[in-house]
Parts: sequence; C-alpha cells; structure tokens
Amino acid sequence: MSSIDLAELSRILGKRGFDCEIVGDPGTEIRSVNTLEDATSGEISFLANPKYRQQLDTTRASAVIVGRDDQIPEGLTVIRCADPYAAITVAIIHIHGYREHPQWGRDERAMIDASATIGDNANIAPNVTICRRVTIGANATIYPGCFVGDDVTIGDDVILYPNVVIYDGSCLGDRVALHSGTVVGEDGLGYVPVDGAWFKIPQIGRVVIEDDVEMGACCTLNRATLGETRIGRGTKFSDGVVIGHGTKVGQHCMFVAQVGIAGSVNVGDNVSLAGQVGVCGHLEIGAGVTVGAKSVVYASIPPGQDYLGYPAVESRAYRKQVAAARRLPDTQKRLRDLEREVERLRSRLAGA
Amino acid sequence: MSSIDLAELSRILGKRGFDCEIVGDPGTEIRSVNTLEDATSGEISFLANPKYRQQLDTTRASAVIVGRDDQIPEGLTVIRCADPYAAITVAIIHIHGYREHPQWGRDERAMIDASATIGDNANIAPNVTICRRVTIGANATIYPGCFVGDDVTIGDDVILYPNVVIYDGSCLGDRVALHSGTVVGEDGLGYVPVDGAWFKIPQIGRVVIEDDVEMGACCTLNRATLGETRIGRGTKFSDGVVIGHGTKVGQHCMFVAQVGIAGSVNVGDNVSLAGQVGVCGHLEIGAGVTVGAKSVVYASIPPGQDYLGYPAVESRAYRKQVAAARRLPDTQKRLRDLEREVERLRSRLAGA
Amino acid sequence: MSSIDLAELSRILGKRGFDCEIVGDPGTEIRSVNTLEDATSGEISFLANPKYRQQLDTTRASAVIVGRDDQIPEGLTVIRCADPYAAITVAIIHIHGYREHPQWGRDERAMIDASATIGDNANIAPNVTICRRVTIGANATIYPGCFVGDDVTIGDDVILYPNVVIYDGSCLGDRVALHSGTVVGEDGLGYVPVDGAWFKIPQIGRVVIEDDVEMGACCTLNRATLGETRIGRGTKFSDGVVIGHGTKVGQHCMFVAQVGIAGSVNVGDNVSLAGQVGVCGHLEIGAGVTVGAKSVVYASIPPGQDYLGYPAVESRAYRKQVAAARRLPDTQKRLRDLEREVERLRSRLAGA
Repeated sequence: MSSIDLAELSRILGKRGFDCEIVGDPGTEIRSVNTLEDATSGEISFLANPKYRQQLDTTRASAVIVGRDDQIPEGLTVIRCADPYAAITVAIIHIHGYREHPQWGRDERAMIDASATIGDNANIAPNVTICRRVTIGANATIYPGCFVGDDVTIGDDVILYPNVVIYDGSCLGDRVALHSGTVVGEDGLGYVPVDGAWFKIPQIGRVVIEDDVEMGACCTLNRATLGETRIGRGTKFSDGVVIGHGTKVGQHCMFVAQVGIAGSVNVGDNVSLAGQVGVCGHLEIGAGVTVGAKSVVYASIPPGQDYLGYPAVESRAYRKQVAAARRLPDTQKRLRDLEREVERLRSRLAGA
Repeated sequence: MSSIDLAELSRILGKRGFDCEIVGDPGTEIRSVNTLEDATSGEISFLANPKYRQQLDTTRASAVIVGRDDQIPEGLTVIRCADPYAAITVAIIHIHGYREHPQWGRDERAMIDASATIGDNANIAPNVTICRRVTIGANATIYPGCFVGDDVTIGDDVILYPNVVIYDGSCLGDRVALHSGTVVGEDGLGYVPVDGAWFKIPQIGRVVIEDDVEMGACCTLNRATLGETRIGRGTKFSDGVVIGHGTKVGQHCMFVAQVGIAGSVNVGDNVSLAGQVGVCGHLEIGAGVTVGAKSVVYASIPPGQDYLGYPAVESRAYRKQVAAARRLPDTQKRLRDLEREVERLRSRLAGA
Repeated sequence: MSSIDLAELSRILGKRGFDCEIVGDPGTEIRSVNTLEDATSGEISFLANPKYRQQLDTTRASAVIVGRDDQIPEGLTVIRCADPYAAITVAIIHIHGYREHPQWGRDERAMIDASATIGDNANIAPNVTICRRVTIGANATIYPGCFVGDDVTIGDDVILYPNVVIYDGSCLGDRVALHSGTVVGEDGLGYVPVDGAWFKIPQIGRVVIEDDVEMGACCTLNRATLGETRIGRGTKFSDGVVIGHGTKVGQHCMFVAQVGIAGSVNVGDNVSLAGQVGVCGHLEIGAGVTVGAKSVVYASIPPGQDYLGYPAVESRAYRKQVAAARRLPDTQKRLRDLEREVERLRSRLAGA
C-alpha cells in the first residue's frame, strides 16, 4: 500500500487512457480507496451508480472519482472522467494491489507423492495433499487443506484457496483461481434403477477448467459420466454454483451465487446467469443470453435473449405476466360482474 | 448428563420463572429429553405444536411438558406450564448441557505463525493454520482443518468447527460460532469488462461478524470490494447462506438455509428470511421484515412487512394471487362462454 | 482398464441377461467408453436419449450400443439390445471399473484417538481426525481433511472423500459414500426468543444415515434437536442438499442438487425431488412422490403424486396454470373489450 496525490493518480489514469480533470487541490494525498459511505480523510471514493448520488453530500472522502457531467457539491474535490468504475479499479490496483499470499515455499508438511511434477516457484502450504502422477505448472499457490487427486493436471499461476478439492483426472488451465471449499470433479447422480434400488454407474469422465476461470467458495462441479464437464476460458462464478455432469459452459460467462445447472447442458459464450437461477438438463443456452435472478429454465434459449421468470420467458413478456397476475383478482371480480350484467341483459331481451 | 425427578425439575423451572403444576408422580425419574415419537421410559418430552397433539396418546415418554390448558390422556404424567417450548429448553440445558468439545489445548501440530497473539485457555486442534498478525481472544475452540488468514481478529469464546475458513483481514466478535465448511471473506464477483473479458478488481474490503452470531455449515460471505460486509450482533444463519459483497445485515436476524443476498443490500434488525429466499442487489430490507420460503425480492421492503412470492409482495396479496391463478383456466373458459353469449345477444338485438 | 472386442462384450452382456445382436465386425476392439460426441476410434458409445439420434451420423466411435429398433446409418458398427443405458453401464464397469483410491493404510499422520475402534483393512489418510469412542467398520476409506467427531459409529465399506465432517454422535451404515465438503450433524436453527435475542437450545439429537446412501459434495444435514434426523437406505443426493433438523427421508429416494428440506418433514420411500426444490417444515411427502425442478412445497403431498410449481400443485394442473398465465394479458384485454361491448348493448337496449 502506497500513498499518492491526485496529480500523480491523474497521470497514472492518463497513461491507461482515462482523460481526467481534477477539480480541487491536485496535491490532495490519498492512501486508500473506500466507499462513499465508509471513506474518511485520506481516502478516495467513486460514484458509478446514480442510486448513491446523495452520498456525495455527506461523504468524508478526501476525493471522489465522478463522471464527466455529474453534479457535485460545492467544495468537494473530484477527478472527473468518462468511466469512474474502471478508473477506481486502476486506483485500487495502484494503491492496494492484489492479495499477498503467505509464502510457504514447498512446505515439508505438504504430502506430495513422489510421482508428482511441480513447477518452479511453488508455494505449497502444510497439509496439502498432492496425489499420484499430478502435474502442476509454475508459480502455484496452494493453501492448507487442499487435495489434488491422482492424475490431475494444473497449469501455471493457479491459486487454490484453503480446503479446495480437485478429484482425480481433472484438468485446470493457467491462472485458474478457486476459492475455499470449492470441489471439482466429484461423482454426479449417475445411477440406473435395478430391482427398485439405484445401481451406481462408474463416473469415468472428467472436469476441464480452462484458463483464467475464477470461482467463489463452495462451488461444486460434477465430473462427466463419460467425456467432459467443461468451463470455458475467462468464465467467473460466485459462491455455491453447482454444475451437473457433462455440462459445457462457454467463455467469459458470469454466474452469480447459487446458480444450479443440471447435466448435459450446453451454455454458449458470454452468458450471464443471475443468483439462484436453475437450468434443467439437456438444454442449449445460446451465446450472450442473460437470465434474471431465481429464474428456472425449462427449455432451450436462443442466443442473445434476455429471460426471466418462473418458468423463464422473454423478460418483457414476463414483466407483463407479473403485472397481469397482480390485477387478476380484480379481473375475476370484473368478470363476475359482467356475467351478472349479461344475464340481466339477456333477461331484459327475453322479456322485450 | 444427570438424572432428575419431576419435583426437582419443577423447582428448577420455578426458579427460571415458570409456574409449574405436576400431574402424576413427582418422583418420576428423568434421564434425558426426546420427541414424543421417539421418547422411551425415563425420558421427558413436550407438546408445543398442536399438530403433534395425537402423539400424547401413543408416546412412551415417562412425562410430558404441556400447556396450561392442553387436554391430556388418562394416566399421562405431565408438567403443566405456560410455555412448554421454553420450559423444555431449560430441561435440555439442565439434563444434557451444551456440546463438550475435545480438548486439544494448544496442539503442537497446529501451525500458528509466530506473529499471532492467542488468548488464554486456547483449544486449538492439530491441522489448524493461523497466519501472520492474527489476534484471537480467550477460550477459543478451533477444530481441525480451520484456516485463519493474515490480520484476522477474533474475540473471546469463539468456536470454529472443522474446516472453517476465515480469509485475511476479517473480524469476528465474541461468542461467534461458525459450523463446518463455512467460509468468511472470500472474493466476490468484482470484475470490470475489458475487451470482452472480465478484469479482476482487487477486493480490498473485509467482513465483520459481530458478537453472538452463529452460522450453520457451508455458509459463504463475500468480503466487500471496498469497506465492509457486516453481520449484526446475535444474528443466526442456517446452512448454505450466501452474503454478497458490501451487504450489511442487522442484529438478531434469522436466515434459514440456502438464503442468498446479493451485494450492497442493507438488511435491518430482526429480519426473518425463510429457506431459499433470494434478495437482489442494492436493496433496503426494513427492520422486522419477514419473507416467506423461496421468495425472490426484486425491490426494497418497508419495515415490519410480511412478504411472500415470486416476485415477493405483501403476503396476503400474494395468497390472493395464487388462489386467483388456480381459478385462471376456469376464468378464461368463462370469458370465452361470455363472449359467445354476448355475441348471441348482439345478434338478437341486431335482428330485433 | 482393459481392451475387449465386441464379440466378448456381447458375451458379457449376454451373461447379464442382455440379448444382443452385433451389426458389423465382431472383432472390433474397444478400449474405453465415451459419449457419441467425444468418442474416437477404439471407443464405444451408446444411444439412450432420442435427442442425440443425429449424433449417430457424425460420431467417431468404433461402435455404438443402440436399441432394438433404432435406425442406424450405413456402415456404423452397433450392438443392438433392449436397454442401451443399462448395457453401457455393464460395459463401463467391465472396461473401466470404479475409482481406485490411493492406499494410505492407516497413516501415522492421521490423528486417531486411542479410544477409537477401527476395523480391518482401513485406508485412513494423513490429516484425518478421529475423535473419542469412534467405531469404524472394515474397509473404510477416509480421505485427507475428514473429521469424525466423538461417539460416531460408521459401518463397513464406507468412503469419506476429502474434507467431509461428521459431527459427534452421528451414525453411518454400511457402504455409505459422502463426497467432499459434506457435513453431517451440525446444529440446526434451534433457538428460543428471549428478551429480543435468540437463545440457543442444546442440539442433543443426532443424524442416522442408513446403508448404501451416497451424497454429493457440500451437502449439510442438521442433527435433530431431539431424537433423529434420518436418511433411508439406498437414498442418493447430488450436491448442496440441505436437510433440516428432525427430518426423516425414506429409502431409495433421489434428491437432485440444491434441494432444501426444512425441519420435521417426513419423506416416504422412492421420492424424487428435482434440483432446487424446497420443502417447508412439518410436512408429509408420500411414498413415490415426484416434484419438478425449483418447486416450492408448502403443503403435504399424498403418495404417488407428480407435483410442480410455485407453489407446487399437481403437475398437469400447474402446466395449465402456466399456459393460462401466458394468455392472461390477452385475457384482460378481451375482458375490457367485452365490457365495452356489453356497455354498448346495454345502451342500445336502453334506447330500444
């Protein structure tokens, strides 16, 4: 963590392509980044979501990164630029940087099978288990309590946080980061019914996680029964995401917490699934699809669609359904009224 | 575990403010507490939920704690009091007490960094990892497989069950208890899109868990991107609860299993969220709010409200919607009938 | 893994009761099993789901197991039989077999209390903790990072994958297999409100898991407050399933990922709950019930029913509700039109 003044921060942002304007004292010293609500003197904050605009009036931050045209209160020191969210990211990286891991080297209390191959500059904690014929690339950081099963291959610059479990035969690319408690490659629900009981099918497939994937805590990925379960390059998961056996997820997807995808689903690139979404088995989710929070997907979705609901349909249609459902008790009352009115008309007409 | 007769139990309840009346033999010996269904001779049970009233006829319990006015079968030995559920709690505490933890002392197979400060009477198991500059108060019980990251501070009388992970910089108050597999302070979904890929923002905030919080197994709490994720004093979670980055939960809340709250949500005090409830990001959930099982909350909820549904609305309104939806196929049939009837009337009127 | 030709595989299937017919060269050599999409030369695949029929035209598999009457492309080598899914299971078992576990014997780095009793042929990894008065049967395989609490009893041929936690007093039958991160017997939400705070009730019940149960990763089972939480013989769970305190699940059930059942529920035998289903507390779910994905169950379900929806009702009724809801905006428009038409008729009748 290093201190910096606004003039210097502005120069750094400029080099990264941000055209900045300082309003206030360019010599203002900044030592850390914080939210508008929690920031105090010596801290810089940002405004990206208009919901928090009012907090500009009350923040104790020494400076705030705001948009080109945001109105600011008298006396607030700001940096104006076109994309405050991206700019604050640059500031966070410069001032704070990424997590510094404890340095264990290759700890002698790690249990590493003699047949395993570990790359240069390994940082492997006590109580890590690395099984037979494992291959791990350079610069691995493996925290305590992790388990890496037989015949697993892992690329360079991988981080496994505490208590991550990688089952036998799984394959992880470069720069994969898995947070605590995540499990890769356990057996899925592969059974055949025999005489009223469930008979287990050996689960001989594997899980492949491509480069630059990051997953939150307690995600679980079933190995394929046959072939592969696969997570595409650059895809990010939050916590508690479950992926069924044989499902293939594309590149640069984002799945929010507690998403569950059943088996044998194909998910295209750049798909966003909001929290608690469920997707049934054997479906095709097209590239660029977005599905809203807690939706359940019973049928395939064409590329580029924005879906929502229970069951999920095109979002605008769903919003109309919800609005209509709220009027439904009134609708039914009006129908009853109308039935009575028509009955009266019928009687009058009969009497006429 | 100690044996006790009903007269003695009645005196103990009396001291705790329960006005008791024994019906039957006050010398009946009790050695443990059980359910009406499973209790056998020498056990005491209770009736608090009228759903189980019939089990009074069949229970093999030696005695039952019942309400002031509950009807009881001939010959059943009971203690009558105003609040059987609270009274049985007193009985459980007296007869059984709380879990007795294994005593490891400060086991030499725990990996405790030299820079850590551990309070008196520590009970730290083998295979615990305690990193740099950690501070832990008195009477800590830390089970095997737990990981406590750099710069974590933990209060007095804390219990971490096996395989709990506390990421760097987190802060836990006094008497916090976290069950197995729970993860505190992992990175959340903090990325900016750059050239079609997700670029990681350092997650420099932290998690604060206040005094007397207890969480079930496999809960996961994202650290804040900036500032704090915070869980208020006395709040209780069941299993698999996920809390997004920067979310603040009030005091004495209760979240049932698999609840998921997105980031930057403010939850007031005494909020109850039933199982599998989802709450979208950047919302305000007022104090005293109750949300029913599996509801999804898309909008802020004022204090004191009782919500339910998909999407969640005021519970009574939702129940009307559900009832109306069940009649909907019939409604649509009646509308078609009415359209035909009106058409007939129109024809007759035209012909008239 | 062993190589085999189709004639030999056909003989093996015949012995297991499959009446097979080879179309093509019986000497075709097979060394592994794969999906139609991923198979290459030397691999056998199968067609059980008609959704994948087209892949028969493009598969590179050397042979495919198909149904009696499936149409096959010219030149494709197949084994015809009545149940391709069961037949491929036999092939997988013969050619690949089940997972071979690392062999640790009774590793000296496992922490086994002197009062524990461990059966013959134990395979207990480093960093396993086995507490006081534990009893474990023959042929146990316990992976690193597992914790077995005081007074736990475990049967024969049990497999605990890495980082499984069994709390004190739990009881596991023979051939139970629990995947990584699963937690058995943690405290549930057992509190009484006292002066605005939650007062903890000692959770003195236990969890019993009967023979032949297999659970996926990160499942969590609350111990009973009193009495038992119980999972019946042969029942299978996928990942992230949560079982509330005192709930009893019957035999040969199948619960897909992220199912959550509240406390004190009785689930009959042979019940199937699809992914993300939620069941509220104190309900009865009859034998043979099926509940569709993401349904929420607010009321008891009689035996043999097929339920679906939010809230769950009989599946056909729910599908009608969904179809009706999609027509609802149109229904409401038609009602408004009809109201106007009736108003016009009324005017004309008044004027007549």
